[in-house]
Amino acid sequence: MANQDLTARAKTSASVRPRVLIVGCGFGGLFAARALARAAVEVLVIDRNNYHLFQPLLYQVASAALGPADIAQPIRTILRTQPNAFVMMGEVTGIDLARARVDVGESHLSFDYLILAPGAVDNYFGHAEWHQWAPGMKEVEDATYIRSRLLRSFETAELEADTAQRAAHLCFVIVGGGPTGVELAGAIKELAVDVIARDFRVADTRRARVLLIEAGPRFLPALHPASSRHALEQLQDLGVEVRLGQPVTEVFADGVEVGGERVRSYNVIWAAGVRASSLVSTLGVPVGPGARVQVMPDCSVPGYPQVFVIGDAAYLVDSKSDRPVPGVSQGALQMGRYVARVIVEEVQGSRASRERGFHYVDWGSMATIGKSRAVVEIGPLRFGGFLAWLAWMFLHVSVLIGFRNRIAVMTSWIYGYVFMRRGSRLITRPTRAW
Amino acid sequence: MANQDLTARAKTSASVRPRVLIVGCGFGGLFAARALARAAVEVLVIDRNNYHLFQPLLYQVASAALGPADIAQPIRTILRTQPNAFVMMGEVTGIDLARARVDVGESHLSFDYLILAPGAVDNYFGHAEWHQWAPGMKEVEDATYIRSRLLRSFETAELEADTAQRAAHLCFVIVGGGPTGVELAGAIKELAVDVIARDFRVADTRRARVLLIEAGPRFLPALHPASSRHALEQLQDLGVEVRLGQPVTEVFADGVEVGGERVRSYNVIWAAGVRASSLVSTLGVPVGPGARVQVMPDCSVPGYPQVFVIGDAAYLVDSKSDRPVPGVSQGALQMGRYVARVIVEEVQGSRASRERGFHYVDWGSMATIGKSRAVVEIGPLRFGGFLAWLAWMFLHVSVLIGFRNRIAVMTSWIYGYVFMRRGSRLITRPTRAW
Repeated sequence: MANQDLTARAKTSASVRPRVLIVGCGFGGLFAARALARAAVEVLVIDRNNYHLFQPLLYQVASAALGPADIAQPIRTILRTQPNAFVMMGEVTGIDLARARVDVGESHLSFDYLILAPGAVDNYFGHAEWHQWAPGMKEVEDATYIRSRLLRSFETAELEADTAQRAAHLCFVIVGGGPTGVELAGAIKELAVDVIARDFRVADTRRARVLLIEAGPRFLPALHPASSRHALEQLQDLGVEVRLGQPVTEVFADGVEVGGERVRSYNVIWAAGVRASSLVSTLGVPVGPGARVQVMPDCSVPGYPQVFVIGDAAYLVDSKSDRPVPGVSQGALQMGRYVARVIVEEVQGSRASRERGFHYVDWGSMATIGKSRAVVEIGPLRFGGFLAWLAWMFLHVSVLIGFRNRIAVMTSWIYGYVFMRRGSRLITRPTRAW
Repeated sequence: MANQDLTARAKTSASVRPRVLIVGCGFGGLFAARALARAAVEVLVIDRNNYHLFQPLLYQVASAALGPADIAQPIRTILRTQPNAFVMMGEVTGIDLARARVDVGESHLSFDYLILAPGAVDNYFGHAEWHQWAPGMKEVEDATYIRSRLLRSFETAELEADTAQRAAHLCFVIVGGGPTGVELAGAIKELAVDVIARDFRVADTRRARVLLIEAGPRFLPALHPASSRHALEQLQDLGVEVRLGQPVTEVFADGVEVGGERVRSYNVIWAAGVRASSLVSTLGVPVGPGARVQVMPDCSVPGYPQVFVIGDAAYLVDSKSDRPVPGVSQGALQMGRYVARVIVEEVQGSRASRERGFHYVDWGSMATIGKSRAVVEIGPLRFGGFLAWLAWMFLHVSVLIGFRNRIAVMTSWIYGYVFMRRGSRLITRPTRAW
C-alpha cells in the first residue's frame, strides 16, 4: 500500500504550512523548488526520474562524448540541504484541479499551490508513426538508444559488402535545424571524421554523410539572421550537407523523402520540434501552439490562480516584448523563479509580483557546431568561431549542477579535444524492466 | 547481404597469412590478440559487444560508483594501432570444428587457428527460474539493471507506509561469498549508510539490511583462510550480516529461503557461481565442472590442435600445481598470451611452448570491502585494511585499459572518498532494441 501522506511521516515534524506541489524537475521545477527554500511552505517535488537532467547536453550523450551520469544529478542530492523540500519519484496519473488533488498511482496528494513543469515531448506533427524510424531525444534512454544505433551503424557498414547498403548505414539524417539539430549534426560529423575513422579497416567513416534538414529558410531561427548565416558556414565548413526550406515529407524504415528526393539512411534523428507533455492535455483548459497551456500573465491556469504551468508546457505571450516566451531552459528557469516569488509573496499577503506578471529576460543564445566552432549572442553582441566555442563551454560547465559533474564533463571535453576521442562509445542492449 | 570475407576487403592488402579467429574479447581474447601483434598472422576478433569490459569493476557500476563507460573501452580503439588485427562485432551462431568454420549470422568465416574465449554466464545450478528474481552480473546491462533496481528500492521504501514492505525494500540479499559477492555487499552497505542516507526524509537507509550468503564454510574460498577471516571481520565491522555454510534453498519474487528461514527482500543478487558460455556446449567435445571444456595441457580442444579454449570457458588442471586454473582474469590473460605464443612458434616451425603446456602463475588475489578496507595476498604476503585497499586501488587503476578510463575512475574514486557521493545514481528505463 502506498503512503497517502508522505510529508506527515517525515523526520521533520508535520506542519500546517501551505503545500506547494511541483510536478517535473527540469529547469523550471527545480528552480521553483530552490526559490522556495526559505519560504514558510512545504515543497513536494514529483518526477518520473530520480534525477534532474541537463537536457541541453543530451546530444553529447547521443554522440558518445559524455555519459548519462555526467549530465544527470539525483534530485534528492540537489535538494538535500533544503529542509522544506520533499522528493517523490513517481508518475503523475491524474490531476483534479477542482478538488486540488494530484494522483501518483495509489497516492492522492492534496495541494495549496500546484506548479506544473512536465516539459515537452517530440512533435511529429501528426505523423506519430515516424517515431519508430526517426527517434527524438528528450530523455536519457533516447540518447543512449540513438548512440547505440549510430555506433551500431558504423559496425554494420564495416561488414557490409553491398555498396548502397553501406552508404545507407553511413548516412545520418537530422531533421530540424534548431540548436539540437545543429549541435547533433556537428557532433556526428566529427565523430565519423575525427574520432573513429582510424578504428575501422574497411568502411571509410570519413566519407559518412551527415544531412541536416530544416523546413524553414534558416538554421537557428530563434537567433539573429547573421548568426544563422554564421552557423550555416561553419556547418558546411565541417562537411555537413544542408537542406534549407525543404520539409521532410515522409519517413521510412530506411530513409526520408525531402524535396521530392528519397535519401536512404538507417539513422534518421528527429529534432524538428516539441509539444507539451500530454499531462497538461488532461487538465481540460485551453491550449495554444504545440499543445501548450495558454497561461495567464502570472503563469497561472485561467480560473485556477493557485495552479501554474511553466516551461515548455506553457504558452505565454510576453506583454512587454509581444513575443511568446521561448521554449528554452532560460524561459523555464525564469518562470520557475517567478512563480516561486508569487507564492512566497502571497503567503506573506502581497500580490505585487502576481499583478506585475511574468516577463522574460533574454540573456542571449548560443549553439556549438562541433569542436572549436559555435555561435553566440549576448544582447547586441554576436560572434562565432573559437571564442564563441570557449564561451559556450564555459557557460555550460558553469551552469551544470553538481561539482562532480563539472569535473567529469570538463575532463571529458579536454580529453576529447586533445586526443580526439570520445569516452562513452558503448553499444548497449535493451535492459529488462524493473 | 553480409560480407563473406571481411579482411579481403580491408584497406591493407589481402594476404595469405594464416588467419587466427578469436571469439570473445575479454581478458583472454584481448591479450591473445595483442600478443599476436607482431606475428605473421591475420587476427580477426569477434565479440558481441563493441567494447572490452573490465569485469572486476562491474560491481561498482551496479552500486552507482562508476558509469559503464568508465570500465569499457571500444575494442577497435584498443587494437587501432595493430595492423594485423580486424574487429567484427557480432554474435557467433555456429562453430564447425571439422570444417574449420565459424558462422556469424550470414557470414561464414574460415580459420587456421581458433581461440575461443567466450567467458562465463551465471550458474543457477539447475534453477534457471531463479534468474528472474535474482539477477546476476556479467554484462553492462546486468549492472545498470541491478543499479536501477536497488536505487528504485530506496525510492519505494521512502513512500511505503507498511513497515514490513518497507523493510523488504531495504533488505539486500547477495548470494555467493566470492570476490563479487563480498565487494558488492560492502559497496551496497556503504551506499545505504554513507552516500544516500541524508537524501531521504522518511526511510532510514542507514538501517538497510545487507545480507551476504555463502553456502561454503568461508568467504573468498580461493584465498588463504586467514584472508577469509580478515574479510569476515571487515564485513561485520561494516554492518553486513553474514550467513556461512547455509545454501539458499529457494528464491521467490520477494525473497529467499536460507537455513530454513525465509528472508523478505526485493533485491536478491546472484553471485554464487558461473558456468561456461553456452557457445562451447555446441562444440560436441567433453566438458568438465561448470560446463567448461576439458582442454589439453596446451589449451587446445582434444582432437583439434588448432582450436583453443581459454579463460572461464576452459577447464584445465595445471600439471605443476595439480590444481585447476582459476576462473579469474589473470587465468584468462595468461592463457591468452600462452596460446598466442604457441601459434607464433608454430608459424615459425617450433613446438616448444605447445609441448611445455600451460602453467598458471599465481600473482596473488585481492578483494575490496567498502571504502578503506580490503584483503590482499601477494605470494606469501597477506594483509588487510587501509594499506590493502590502497594496493587494490592502485592495481585496478593501473590495469584498466585506456588513459581516459584511468583518469575517470581515479576522479570518481577520489571524489567518492572525499565527499562520500557516487556519481552514477541513475534509475534508467528499458530502452528499445536497435
